[in-house]
Amino acid sequence: MWYENKLTQDLGIKYPIIQAGMAGGTTTPELVAAVSNSGGLGTLGAGYMSPEQTKEAIQEIKQLTGQPFGVNIFIPEIPDVSEETIEKANEWLRPFREELQLTEPEIKKQAASLFEKQIAIILEERVPVCSFTFGVPAKDIIRKLKKENIVVIGTATTVREAIINEEIGMDMVVMQGSEAGGHRGTFSGPFEKAMIGTMSLIPQAVDHVNIPVIAAGGIMDGRGVLAALTLGAGAAQMGTAFVTSQESGAKKQQKEAILNGTEEEPMITSVFSGKPARGIQNEFMERMAEYENELPDYPVQNALTKEIRSEAARQNRPEWLHLWSGQSPRLSKGQPASVIISDIIAQVNDIIKER
Amino acid sequence: MWYENKLTQDLGIKYPIIQAGMAGGTTTPELVAAVSNSGGLGTLGAGYMSPEQTKEAIQEIKQLTGQPFGVNIFIPEIPDVSEETIEKANEWLRPFREELQLTEPEIKKQAASLFEKQIAIILEERVPVCSFTFGVPAKDIIRKLKKENIVVIGTATTVREAIINEEIGMDMVVMQGSEAGGHRGTFSGPFEKAMIGTMSLIPQAVDHVNIPVIAAGGIMDGRGVLAALTLGAGAAQMGTAFVTSQESGAKKQQKEAILNGTEEEPMITSVFSGKPARGIQNEFMERMAEYENELPDYPVQNALTKEIRSEAARQNRPEWLHLWSGQSPRLSKGQPASVIISDIIAQVNDIIKER
Repeated sequence: MWYENKLTQDLGIKYPIIQAGMAGGTTTPELVAAVSNSGGLGTLGAGYMSPEQTKEAIQEIKQLTGQPFGVNIFIPEIPDVSEETIEKANEWLRPFREELQLTEPEIKKQAASLFEKQIAIILEERVPVCSFTFGVPAKDIIRKLKKENIVVIGTATTVREAIINEEIGMDMVVMQGSEAGGHRGTFSGPFEKAMIGTMSLIPQAVDHVNIPVIAAGGIMDGRGVLAALTLGAGAAQMGTAFVTSQESGAKKQQKEAILNGTEEEPMITSVFSGKPARGIQNEFMERMAEYENELPDYPVQNALTKEIRSEAARQNRPEWLHLWSGQSPRLSKGQPASVIISDIIAQVNDIIKER
Repeated sequence: MWYENKLTQDLGIKYPIIQAGMAGGTTTPELVAAVSNSGGLGTLGAGYMSPEQTKEAIQEIKQLTGQPFGVNIFIPEIPDVSEETIEKANEWLRPFREELQLTEPEIKKQAASLFEKQIAIILEERVPVCSFTFGVPAKDIIRKLKKENIVVIGTATTVREAIINEEIGMDMVVMQGSEAGGHRGTFSGPFEKAMIGTMSLIPQAVDHVNIPVIAAGGIMDGRGVLAALTLGAGAAQMGTAFVTSQESGAKKQQKEAILNGTEEEPMITSVFSGKPARGIQNEFMERMAEYENELPDYPVQNALTKEIRSEAARQNRPEWLHLWSGQSPRLSKGQPASVIISDIIAQVNDIIKER
């Protein structure tokens, strides 16, 4: 059958469909479990979670499914940001804070220990799959996870990054095409050179690594999944398609923006987090664009805008909220995750039957 | 069979493979005929040709093939460029001209009549297929061509542009994904919003127009062609794959840059022509980047740099030459066009058989 391959076998899943581990509350335990129960691989986006939240969510997922699932975590980045840079950013953000009646937040330095603690929880909870974004971890972490039979998956945006992932010992690698929504996973070189479309990226990566490649970026339905497999990928990873799913914990403004969006709206911006990400163009992006190159690096800018974004959501002001989306919003449907997956399978079967 | 559909029937070709009508000497009559004789649709890129050259090339193609072929022409653009803008551009280009021992060229205003004359030749020569780039022609031109049973094909980079093409009466539309090499075909709105990856662009276009869609951008082999059909396209159009073919008239420096290139090198630039295009990053692009937003619009800047580029090629200085390429240079092979096509067919058959 078209859906059986080394990757599905290694992951112990039926269908080569992976729900992206989007951070920030989108990947509720209900969503992760629904995807895994439908034969795909659900993934908890634990990037912004505390160790306690990570552990609790994993335990909830286990209550909801006996099938394999993954946890995605971020490789820590501790940039050297000056006080002056932060002060300037705060000045530019002041008009938004004033209108939302917010005060300046205190910035805690991101603790590298969060990452170590999350790894410890993943080992302890024997999570079936651990995926990484924003770089690769130290080799001994990979070794420890693999020793416990945890499948490790990296993220890359160029062939070079795919090779780095293979060499460090990743079992599989997600190739994130330029169509993808949310943060760019680029960790080696300028992000502009790593804006490679999925149609170009997948076959070139497949030709240069021996581990299974997972295609990401622009894939929303059976056509995209089968196209990804045709390009040589072992599976397709979908983010935006699941953001609007009924089980998703994404803000309703983000869901609505995607459901009503067109392919011309999601643009790359660093103004929300200090790291390039694709989201539906809005007023915050436009007003902050002129300062884009002077803002503090991720995750400092992310911390500076966090309250603005959550308060903007609360006050129903989507124009100041990050509306992450890939380039295929017209293909979003707002169904339950199980229907998204069964529709994909039916569509692929139809395409193959017609040939 | 997988290769039979409405598009191949309407075009009278065997395989859903179209060689892009790249302007500037790449599409020799030998290349066009080789593609058509191999069951695809060869296309003469007549964008920069005089009426005489256009007619002569068409007649040569007819000597070499009895199969259908196309001619691609540019919708004329006559931008309002001030003398001051041209003077500034000439000043920035002076160092290149001095080193190449060139004088300032005289700029002739592009004659809109070139377009009318090319249309007259296409009608007179009963060219089977006429495709357009950089916009749509007046409705009565489409009508005249269709009356003579000439298939008309437009170019679009967004769903909106696809709909414009359908409404004006195009028989088919090429959807140019962001991966594509050479000039962006965007004609409606800022090009940045129309940088949509092929994986996203094709299914969204297919869902919104009733005419056959031709997928372009990043497609180089059987995997790409079958992926494009899977996304709903009626055919794949390939440019870069044929630039390095043995019959191609592209400069040897461009062929070598593609054959040795990686997916991280082809970047979007307007410095060669005044219009955004994707080419392998080189010194000319880097040195001129700071003036990019102040340069004269296409086709004026194109005329200003024309001699610099041809002289740079003659003096074997690829660092100052436009090295147009899509994002899949690693997939280029430098074979004869007939082998490129037969390899694609064999690869597609293999993929389908394995399912």
